Amino acid sequence: MFLFDVLHRDGRSRARVGRVVTPHGAFDTPAFMPVGTAGAIKGVTPRQLAGTGTQIMLANTYHLQLRPTAEVVAGFGGLHRFIGWEGPILTDSGGYQVFSLAKINAIDEEGVEFRSHIDGALLRLDAETATRIQNQLGADIIMAFDQCPPLPCARATAELAVERTVGWAKRCRAAHARTDQWMFGIVQGGLDHGLRRRCAERLIEIGFDGYAVGGLSVGESHEEMVEVLGRLEPVLPVDRPRYLMGVGMPRDLYACVRLGVDMFDCVLPTRNGRNAYAFTASGVLRMRNEVHRLSAEPLEAGCDCETCGRFSRGYLRHLFMSGEMLGPVLTSIHNLRFFQRLMGRMRDLIPRGELGRIGEEFPVVQSDNRNDEA
Amino acid sequence: MFLFDVLHRDGRSRARVGRVVTPHGAFDTPAFMPVGTAGAIKGVTPRQLAGTGTQIMLANTYHLQLRPTAEVVAGFGGLHRFIGWEGPILTDSGGYQVFSLAKINAIDEEGVEFRSHIDGALLRLDAETATRIQNQLGADIIMAFDQCPPLPCARATAELAVERTVGWAKRCRAAHARTDQWMFGIVQGGLDHGLRRRCAERLIEIGFDGYAVGGLSVGESHEEMVEVLGRLEPVLPVDRPRYLMGVGMPRDLYACVRLGVDMFDCVLPTRNGRNAYAFTASGVLRMRNEVHRLSAEPLEAGCDCETCGRFSRGYLRHLFMSGEMLGPVLTSIHNLRFFQRLMGRMRDLIPRGELGRIGEEFPVVQSDNRNDEA
Repeated sequence: MFLFDVLHRDGRSRARVGRVVTPHGAFDTPAFMPVGTAGAIKGVTPRQLAGTGTQIMLANTYHLQLRPTAEVVAGFGGLHRFIGWEGPILTDSGGYQVFSLAKINAIDEEGVEFRSHIDGALLRLDAETATRIQNQLGADIIMAFDQCPPLPCARATAELAVERTVGWAKRCRAAHARTDQWMFGIVQGGLDHGLRRRCAERLIEIGFDGYAVGGLSVGESHEEMVEVLGRLEPVLPVDRPRYLMGVGMPRDLYACVRLGVDMFDCVLPTRNGRNAYAFTASGVLRMRNEVHRLSAEPLEAGCDCETCGRFSRGYLRHLFMSGEMLGPVLTSIHNLRFFQRLMGRMRDLIPRGELGRIGEEFPVVQSDNRNDEA
Repeated sequence: MFLFDVLHRDGRSRARVGRVVTPHGAFDTPAFMPVGTAGAIKGVTPRQLAGTGTQIMLANTYHLQLRPTAEVVAGFGGLHRFIGWEGPILTDSGGYQVFSLAKINAIDEEGVEFRSHIDGALLRLDAETATRIQNQLGADIIMAFDQCPPLPCARATAELAVERTVGWAKRCRAAHARTDQWMFGIVQGGLDHGLRRRCAERLIEIGFDGYAVGGLSVGESHEEMVEVLGRLEPVLPVDRPRYLMGVGMPRDLYACVRLGVDMFDCVLPTRNGRNAYAFTASGVLRMRNEVHRLSAEPLEAGCDCETCGRFSRGYLRHLFMSGEMLGPVLTSIHNLRFFQRLMGRMRDLIPRGELGRIGEEFPVVQSDNRNDEA
């Protein structure tokens, strides 16, 4: 039912091209997963999403459990049928959201007690619950429940988070009740290479279908992230997918593909799209800027997305200035297509040993500022 | 370049089926025109709009002149290219919006001086300006500038509005500078049959490509509207399209099709869609209602829209409860398709002499409450 094949390796970096087969179809790696927090990519229909070249999407366990609850989703036949997306889906464990969105009431080895950010209800999440919820949601890939401390954090905090994450991972693996879902473990450890290695080794001992790197892109610098990932990568099994959670900017994607990462997720294409920022190969366009008022150009020349095929920068600016929903919708569609074109182009170049050309074709991967203008 | 053919007449009512050919393609009548106020159907892309069976859409002269201005739109090659809708477009005259949205500063025979509802700028609209703006926007059908008094209004007010509307109509006709745009006159006159008739006769003397009925659906009862229209209809030329502005509810559409109206426009499908009201043949569904929480049914069984093909009432309710943009988008698409299915079914039934069956197939056309639940 599941397969992961590494099809090509780059001779000059650790980049690799592969293919993951799931019960809901296949996706090519390195893959970028758009984020459908509450079971919807904001403003984008599943049909439009497929049109951006997206093959797999992510949904958030924490949000879906608060509303409408996993039980309700299961009653609809699971997440795929509920949200109308027939392709592969990954659900996160809820750990990151509990620690970043909810008001924590108590946390111990057992799990986390917290208050819902929606209505203040007192709830618990632990290894068994997070697993059961994800079994009910029915995504193709589910994540072990982890503790994700914000960076920077003291070594003791990072160490405790690793201990908990490993203990919880073991319980998640034991609780996992479905054979038609892959489960990935999540490597924590902050910026401490020793802790990261220890966490990875213990997760590998438990044995997961893939390995995620969590707790990055949470406040550290690009260089710190690359350093952690570069030293961790050799520890990870070559025959299992590696997933870097919550990353990221085009520059991060390129750097981390070169370090052997196979999967990414990030809210940037849609969040920035809603805020009138459009990604292009040469930088970001601020669509409210007066400079676009009379521009008949598409967001990006040569882009094959639905938006660039039909609408000018001038019209998109008009939509944002007029508060029209269609501005966020059309810019999100372009941004999603941009991310998928970038990933697709990396997948093309790797087998030809030409991954380095991506910097010429997409100069934005060399930019260190998310709001650099094109 | 333009044609209007009446293809079928109903033997039992004044209903008729026709076809209008414009420089941007044809549309079948009776036609329903969705409203793209600022040059966008809220939340719906032109591709999705075409998928609802929409053949012609409306845009608002007043809003587009305030932002981004007709001059800017003309610089983009006109409205069709600017907004990415290749089919026929109708622009209203701006009159209704000036009198309903703007703060009127002065009004006389010359025209209207008003303050923009966006930034308070002092602006003028008169017959020549409204025509020039619509010439610049480049819609296929443009409207003569009219004065639309709110109902109820004194006879003297209605009479003055008729005098002004006729005078302005003459000046609009003279100012109209393009042969690739049809111009319609607008019949005013409140609820006074004599005034309505006088206004229509004088507009016919001037000679327009079609005749609109304005100043209805502005506070009067359904019965009053039907009464005015029923007595006005015999005055209107049989070989010219008749357009009832700003109407309406399914019940109004059916009643007014029976009175020989060929064209309608209304914001209801999209405005109600945004507010979580879904139209069905048997009534309106309030999508935030708890009753839909676990419903796996589509909004309407047998509906061929994008939304009903893929999403359940339970999911749509979840989207509204979660504040997801996709709720308004998907419900607007369904509502637009619902209105187009209703119009299409009337066009099917008229040639067969079976228009009366619409009441069995769409019981909602007999409902007098826009929020009646299905």
